Formats: sequence, C-alpha cells, structure tokens
Amino acid sequence: MEYKKGNQNTIKRGKKKASYNIEEINKILDASEICHIAFNVDGLPQVQPINFGRKGNKLYIHGSLKNRMTNSLIENKKVCLSVMHLDAMKLSRSAFHHSVNYRSAVIFGSVKELKTSAEKLVGLKSIITHFVPNRWDFCREPTEKELLATKVLEIEIESASAKIADTEVSDNKDDEKLNHWAGIIPIKTICEYPIATENLKSEIKIPKHILEFYEKNKNGF
Amino acid sequence: MEYKKGNQNTIKRGKKKASYNIEEINKILDASEICHIAFNVDGLPQVQPINFGRKGNKLYIHGSLKNRMTNSLIENKKVCLSVMHLDAMKLSRSAFHHSVNYRSAVIFGSVKELKTSAEKLVGLKSIITHFVPNRWDFCREPTEKELLATKVLEIEIESASAKIADTEVSDNKDDEKLNHWAGIIPIKTICEYPIATENLKSEIKIPKHILEFYEKNKNGF
Repeated sequence: MEYKKGNQNTIKRGKKKASYNIEEINKILDASEICHIAFNVDGLPQVQPINFGRKGNKLYIHGSLKNRMTNSLIENKKVCLSVMHLDAMKLSRSAFHHSVNYRSAVIFGSVKELKTSAEKLVGLKSIITHFVPNRWDFCREPTEKELLATKVLEIEIESASAKIADTEVSDNKDDEKLNHWAGIIPIKTICEYPIATENLKSEIKIPKHILEFYEKNKNGF
Repeated sequence: MEYKKGNQNTIKRGKKKASYNIEEINKILDASEICHIAFNVDGLPQVQPINFGRKGNKLYIHGSLKNRMTNSLIENKKVCLSVMHLDAMKLSRSAFHHSVNYRSAVIFGSVKELKTSAEKLVGLKSIITHFVPNRWDFCREPTEKELLATKVLEIEIESASAKIADTEVSDNKDDEKLNHWAGIIPIKTICEYPIATENLKSEIKIPKHILEFYEKNKNGF
C-alpha cells in the first residue's frame, strides 16, 4: 500500500531515494522516539521536537493547556512533521559530493483535539506504547485531574513520503584519481543498559518489557 | 553572553530547563550533524531535515537551484530551525511523568542568499567543516560549475533558546510507593570506525582529521 503522490508529498529532488510505501514509512516513524513538528506563530513557521505515538494511520502528541505549538495546530487544523535517522556520513574526494545515508519521513496530516477522557487515554496510551512497547501495562494510568491538565491531539496521516539513502560514496570518475581519502563513517543511535531510579524499592527487578526494549535497540534504533 | 529574551524565543513551559547562553546554544548546534528547518509552502508550515554549518552567529545551508525549501526561505527572509539530542528516556511509575533528558535548541534568524562564488565558498566551507572538522583541506574544492548549480543561504541568528533536561525520574510522592519499575534508559548517538570506499587507492591511509572525528564521537555526539 502506498500514499498517493500529490502536490505536497511528491519528492522532486533525489527521486531514487523516494518511497511512498506505508509500511516503510511506519517503520521509520516507529524507530523514532522524537519527531519535529512545524507550526505557525504569527505567520512565521516554527519547528519544535516532540515525542509522539502511532496507531495505524493516526499519530498522537500531547502538550500542556497553554502550549503554543499544540494550540497553533488545533487552530490551523493541518500539520507537517518529520523524522530522520542519520545512518552514515559519506566523505567523498570532492567537497561537493559529501553527503549522508539516512532514513527520513515527512508526514502531512489533519489535526483533531481529543476531548473526552476515553479518547485522551487512547492517545496517551499510544504515546507511551511508542515510547517503550508494553510500558502502559506496567505504570500507573493517568488520573482525571492529569487528563484535564493535558491536551491530546490526533493527527490523521493524509499523505507522506520517505527518503532512504543507503549507498556508497560517489565521486566523479576524474576525482577518483585524487589522493584524498574517501569513505563512510557509520552513525548509530543506541540505548544503554537501564538504570533503576535511586529510591526504587530494592525488590523490584528490571521488567521484561524494558529488557526487550534494551535488547532491540542496544545496537541501533 | 546571552540572547535577549523576546516574544519568539522566550520559553514559557519548563523554564528551569531554559538557557539563552550563546556558548551553550552553539555547543548544541555544533554537536548536531542535522537540523530541522521550518518553511512555508502555500501558507502551510512544513519541516525538513538538512545538514548545516556554523561560523560565529551565522549558519549556512545549501540546496539545488529548484529546491522548494531554500527558495521558500529566500522568499520569506525569516527562518526557524531546531536541533535535538536525545540523551535518555525517563520511565516513571506514573504514565503521566514519563519524559526524556535532552539538549535542544531553537534558532530564529534572517536569511540571505549568497550570490558570489567567494561568498558561496565561505558557506560551503562552513558546512563541510561542521560535517567533519578540517575536512575542507583534504578534499577537492567546488568548481565554478558546481557553485553555479548550488544555492547557498546564510542565516544570521537573531534570537535563540535552548532547553537542557538532565535530571532523574520524577514521580509524585504517593506514586513512589507503587510496585512499578522506574528508571532511566540512556540514549547515545555514536559513530563507528571509518570504512574506506571500495575503490580507494590502497596507499591512502585514514587521515588524522577523520581519526580525530572518530575518537571524539565514538562514545557519543
């Protein structure tokens, strides 16, 4: 299944790297703890990082009641966000051909504020589950008071695209004769072994869902 | 030296994490290979990742002649961009207090297109130097033809802010009695040992500037 190519999501530069495959885009989203969201304040586009959740073709974010970003998104009803994993730095012999290997996705969607506690819980569960799978069942659920202090936004993905670069260094034929070093420096984002908080009851061991998260991501998200 | 707090860059939520210190903000920028840039297309704010350079209070980006983002920035003259390093995931006993440790910066600036080859070279050198320090002296400089095929933008930083979170898990006193595991999962972005490109002349060894980059970042950017 692919997102339909429209005016917004069609990639014009670097078409060989482009993908509109829904599964591939979801995979890039799910490997990202953080996305960067664009929003307008007084006509100027701004960008901020935020964590998020995904359930099917819906994304979820949350913010405090007075948060400028969430309120701007509620007002404007449309949103664009992006995620990117840097996988390698590519150092060519020519300055001009330096580049990176990466997986990135740009999402366009419509924004809906979730109003009822039941809806908000769906969104927050999605955010926590995206953070660490299965975590929701091993922490205290939000209270009514906490839900009232949070705005939860549902973003329905309307269109999207990904760019995936995973190639060798490329240089012009003539430049290959030069005596400059060329190659790749691999980049990884990894997690390290979980550290219990200082005042944790001594009988509580690291649970399975945390160890699974560690094993899955210790060599790279 | 600090950026003056104005309407755009003043942090309203999480004030304890806020910094306007120029040196601190530059340090966060310099540890980032990629930033996310906000720009308007047909009135809708969009966001894309891109690499960049920094020289003093100027940032540099580049794009092909028809690139929608660079052309939108040239037209709108103002820009907002952000960088973020995720340092740890904080798992509290309550769903509501899950959060992350991070270093992020949001930059507001004015955009100027660099037109002459001399100006463009300053921008591109800054981008390559930011990519890998000292790399510029060990690769082929761009030709006139390559410079003509590239737009180079200079962003003068007008205001900025950083947010730095580096604290323990926080739970309400009552929640500390719960039997849920709480703690931190450290996150790092690292580089691995450089890999020479397949057709590199066998007598070319990994140069000092690449090994220094590896040593500096192998345990985290």
